[in-house]
Amino acid sequence: MSDPWQECMDFCLDVTKRAGKMIREALQKDITIMQKSSPVDLVTETDHKVEQLIISSLKEKYPTHSFIGEESVAAGAPSILTDNPTWIIDPIDGTTNFVHRFPFVSVSIGFTVKKEIEFGIVYSCIEDKMYTAHRGKGAFCNGVPIKVSGQEDISRSLVLTEMGFRKEPEHFHMMLANIKTILTIPVHGIRSPGSAAINMCLVASGSADAYYHMGIHCWDMAGGAAIVTEAGGVIMDISGGPFDLMSRRLIVASSRTIAERIAKEITEFPVGRDDTEGR
Amino acid sequence: MSDPWQECMDFCLDVTKRAGKMIREALQKDITIMQKSSPVDLVTETDHKVEQLIISSLKEKYPTHSFIGEESVAAGAPSILTDNPTWIIDPIDGTTNFVHRFPFVSVSIGFTVKKEIEFGIVYSCIEDKMYTAHRGKGAFCNGVPIKVSGQEDISRSLVLTEMGFRKEPEHFHMMLANIKTILTIPVHGIRSPGSAAINMCLVASGSADAYYHMGIHCWDMAGGAAIVTEAGGVIMDISGGPFDLMSRRLIVASSRTIAERIAKEITEFPVGRDDTEGR
Repeated sequence: MSDPWQECMDFCLDVTKRAGKMIREALQKDITIMQKSSPVDLVTETDHKVEQLIISSLKEKYPTHSFIGEESVAAGAPSILTDNPTWIIDPIDGTTNFVHRFPFVSVSIGFTVKKEIEFGIVYSCIEDKMYTAHRGKGAFCNGVPIKVSGQEDISRSLVLTEMGFRKEPEHFHMMLANIKTILTIPVHGIRSPGSAAINMCLVASGSADAYYHMGIHCWDMAGGAAIVTEAGGVIMDISGGPFDLMSRRLIVASSRTIAERIAKEITEFPVGRDDTEGR
Repeated sequence: MSDPWQECMDFCLDVTKRAGKMIREALQKDITIMQKSSPVDLVTETDHKVEQLIISSLKEKYPTHSFIGEESVAAGAPSILTDNPTWIIDPIDGTTNFVHRFPFVSVSIGFTVKKEIEFGIVYSCIEDKMYTAHRGKGAFCNGVPIKVSGQEDISRSLVLTEMGFRKEPEHFHMMLANIKTILTIPVHGIRSPGSAAINMCLVASGSADAYYHMGIHCWDMAGGAAIVTEAGGVIMDISGGPFDLMSRRLIVASSRTIAERIAKEITEFPVGRDDTEGR
């Protein structure tokens, strides 16, 4: 029997390409407009336009499916994962990078059926890298198979995480303390590229060995989760338990050994969930 | 009168292209060899081969010039800047990135005359971006003029710095405290790409608004310093005083306002100098 979701993935790939083209065109605009007059408006406008393109295309084709998107959630739409086929969409992952044209900006789309991720697509727009993965069929970058580094020795690993200002002083302190803890292991280094979806693809393609983050959303993770898993990587919760798409936290790594070591080393702080009012 | 150093720059560009090709070829090697068996040996071997290519080509052409290179200094060569025309060379800037194929790896070459930087070339090998700048003639990426963002508002800026483990606990603490201070301003974000030369080029091309670092070397800075200056950027010492190529520290920014604010916010810690035995 042929895969019932392959057609959805093919269609999604086409939509993602069109979304990527729209983002690339927006990045052509005069940089002084981008950065000086009203960067927040510009990013909001592009984010909204790209999400509209993606959701309207998918909804027209699959009217019975569910949708969770960064922009529509911000506008008050619910973000509850059900058994229904569900598209989880981040039209621009790395919006700060987008404003600055820092070279890691992506479209991220994950597709779940019965709450399990079926496939994921992440398009790194400036690098022009299309990452794709379909459950059980491997992970690819521009059609070429990718796999994780397989590194098991954390002291030889390159670790990704992101640093952001947090209003809660205690959480801010913990975020920095975690960076200190990881650096002290020591590791080869820490990098902060600024796009969660691309961070996961960097681990999937062996350019980094681990990525951990607390405070991201399901739309940052859904596409990349499929890719890193199909590339042979490990994905788990910050606690070391099973990965939960709605938990706003994750560890991905080239091996279970490294993922578990990171889970052991870092301190959790509360970030809420995507599917409760607490977020 | 024609520029006496243009010919040197043209020749250097050709040598840089050949060096970049060598690095790209090394990156084609099997990733399992890169990361598992002996990454340190591989990087040392490539670093050494690339520096040999660069220095032997330049020395043959310009036998009276002086040379300061990362690999030759490691082998005991002196690193004293004189009035003689001097080539300052980092064959692979971002060696950790090289080992992991993290996409920011560069060749960096700066050329000084009477201790002043005359031109600089930085080739970002994986991105295939050739950054060039000649004093008074502007800065370019793949032949297209580049300029800094011009951003003056630090709260709208994207800041680059690097995080490394430091054996001196106090310095390690200060490095992390500085990151906390910058994030708290707040800024749009902090990114850590892992190549000093590329960081300077990212500021030069407007993809980031500032970069500060303590503990780097003259060969990490010389090429990029020319590029960021010619792109309209500001370069200064961590203290806010004049930039000193041998001081192992710098701030570059899209504007004087942002550079001075960073100088004011961060705490200095001793890193030695390139031209004394203390390093």
